[in-house]
Amino acid sequence: MAPLKFQGWLGKTPEAAKGQMEWGEFEPKKWTEDDVDIEISHCGICGSDLHTLSSGWGPTPYPCCVGHEIVGKAVKVGKNVKHIKEGDRVGVGAQARSCLEADCPDCSTGLETHCARENVNTYGSVYPGDEGKSYGGYADYNRTNGHFVIPIPDGLSSADAAPMLCGGVTVYSPLRQNGCGPGKTVGVVGVGGLGHFAVLFAKALGADRVVGISRKAEKREDVLKLGADQYIATEEDSKWAASNTRTLDLIICTVSSAKMPMAEYLSLLKPKGTFIQVGAPDGGLLPAINAFILIGNGIKVGGSFIGTPQEIQEMLQLAVDKNVRPWIQERPMQDANKAIVDMEEGKARYRYVLVNENYGKH
Amino acid sequence: MAPLKFQGWLGKTPEAAKGQMEWGEFEPKKWTEDDVDIEISHCGICGSDLHTLSSGWGPTPYPCCVGHEIVGKAVKVGKNVKHIKEGDRVGVGAQARSCLEADCPDCSTGLETHCARENVNTYGSVYPGDEGKSYGGYADYNRTNGHFVIPIPDGLSSADAAPMLCGGVTVYSPLRQNGCGPGKTVGVVGVGGLGHFAVLFAKALGADRVVGISRKAEKREDVLKLGADQYIATEEDSKWAASNTRTLDLIICTVSSAKMPMAEYLSLLKPKGTFIQVGAPDGGLLPAINAFILIGNGIKVGGSFIGTPQEIQEMLQLAVDKNVRPWIQERPMQDANKAIVDMEEGKARYRYVLVNENYGKH
Repeated sequence: MAPLKFQGWLGKTPEAAKGQMEWGEFEPKKWTEDDVDIEISHCGICGSDLHTLSSGWGPTPYPCCVGHEIVGKAVKVGKNVKHIKEGDRVGVGAQARSCLEADCPDCSTGLETHCARENVNTYGSVYPGDEGKSYGGYADYNRTNGHFVIPIPDGLSSADAAPMLCGGVTVYSPLRQNGCGPGKTVGVVGVGGLGHFAVLFAKALGADRVVGISRKAEKREDVLKLGADQYIATEEDSKWAASNTRTLDLIICTVSSAKMPMAEYLSLLKPKGTFIQVGAPDGGLLPAINAFILIGNGIKVGGSFIGTPQEIQEMLQLAVDKNVRPWIQERPMQDANKAIVDMEEGKARYRYVLVNENYGKH
Repeated sequence: MAPLKFQGWLGKTPEAAKGQMEWGEFEPKKWTEDDVDIEISHCGICGSDLHTLSSGWGPTPYPCCVGHEIVGKAVKVGKNVKHIKEGDRVGVGAQARSCLEADCPDCSTGLETHCARENVNTYGSVYPGDEGKSYGGYADYNRTNGHFVIPIPDGLSSADAAPMLCGGVTVYSPLRQNGCGPGKTVGVVGVGGLGHFAVLFAKALGADRVVGISRKAEKREDVLKLGADQYIATEEDSKWAASNTRTLDLIICTVSSAKMPMAEYLSLLKPKGTFIQVGAPDGGLLPAINAFILIGNGIKVGGSFIGTPQEIQEMLQLAVDKNVRPWIQERPMQDANKAIVDMEEGKARYRYVLVNENYGKH
């Protein structure tokens, strides 16, 4: 096979986030027999792509190519990769910086998304290691350590699968790990890209009731169509907290603002309930929490970060079994610059997926 | 049997907290066949006694008699109370306001400490219900709904058992509910009355390592003698957080200050670790938490409030089985005023127990 030509949308300065990515060639990480090369047919657009392009979460080592909701065909499979063969339809999701070393207390115990090693070859990182830096999926090809390459099950379109690989698993993981299922009532704060997945997966996991919570009334119809049993528009009903107190076992909070009404959100939890934050406000600080509500109701406030390849695989199978259909809008890969600007402006309903004109014939 | 004469140390104004309780007679709650009358031999002094006496946590309906770490002999047992018989050595611990109704979503599901009903007969409350208000254990006799009356197992002295009934279970419950046991490393922030119990019970539950964390070095020797494997004096070692990062599965935080170094405490947790607050600072607000550490490490911050009678019973048996010996100082019941002043001044090492001269003959 002739060497692949890796081309993609490159961010070269923070201005890239304003729709100024440039199409060009890049040098993928050094090939090893642990890797898989993927011909990309689809790539979802995730909010964090914008933060990386703009250096919003710290300085990005330009040039970068973002995109971590990748679906395509495995065209080259390293000898050490046993679960994928050439021609398979595969996905690559959001990756934490994981060293994957056998002696890592995190990576060796299923906690790879929390790997703390700062050394070389933390896969999924845009920061260069011995094997070179990682590039993302706004591109023709992607090279990734096979550990992160996941077979896409039949019965799920590539366009539907793509945004699940980060957006989906970011909410699926905390739902699953915090007991979402029959008998449970789940609240979803913020119904955007992540929140819409949280409603879909909470229902798919069998929660008794799912309650969408957002500021304005305008999303009510969408949220109920997604499957929610109730919608709370906090700006439209001054008594929303009091009239829904102690009704939820679990809240997944997809909004992040230092000014969000945290005390009111927490008051919605039943005793022993759990509130999971999946987004961070600028600067990171959440509103101060009153110890009395933590203690008096025995509740917990936590955070969750993406999910492991195992969780992604489990989620994709659930999506097939329960016919979970995300609400997505396909955008041509060639229009990526326009798409990220629209994304930043909050126009996505609820998730954009770039379709690669060369390979996206599904 | 002649009617009992209920006498005890009464707080009549907020000044009572300064050592101005007055010995006198009081009218116990109305007798029902659900109740037990107890001849009090011992009663532990708990920090919250001071808050009740001083109206520090809201207005107290004086006169009050505080004390909820009661041990004594059951001298009258209602017909509906099946698990206690006259003459038994029994204890009564801290009680939440629990309605104990069969249709209560909390009380009927083991969550009685989080009962939210505001109606009559929330037992354990100093606020009057139909059956009159509850009085505590700085007294000769106590009348309590049998639900809260717990047999004290042989092998545990009454003086040792008393402070476990609130102080002990306040930390035992979150240890137990958050997986303290073999394979786990547990931190205890603050080593006073509660913290000393947390060290003892974390070891008794089989934690691999227990780490005491306090500001000054002076408690080091005590904490290691209590069984801790390590002691961190945060004011003596500027690098304490960095050098102990990601080492703990669970932290029980017994201190409560809006200025405590929350970010540093949280940095001690391993991924997926849990931080449980058992005390509230004045006003209640904890230091604002950074969402990045919650998300990045997948950790949780929660609270815990006392424990159920079932948990108390389990804890007492563990204390017998593992020979847990709290560090207590006995004080004569007649010197209760002096004892609470000493308690307020932080002199207890680590828990005071009032001994009733009339009945405290073990």
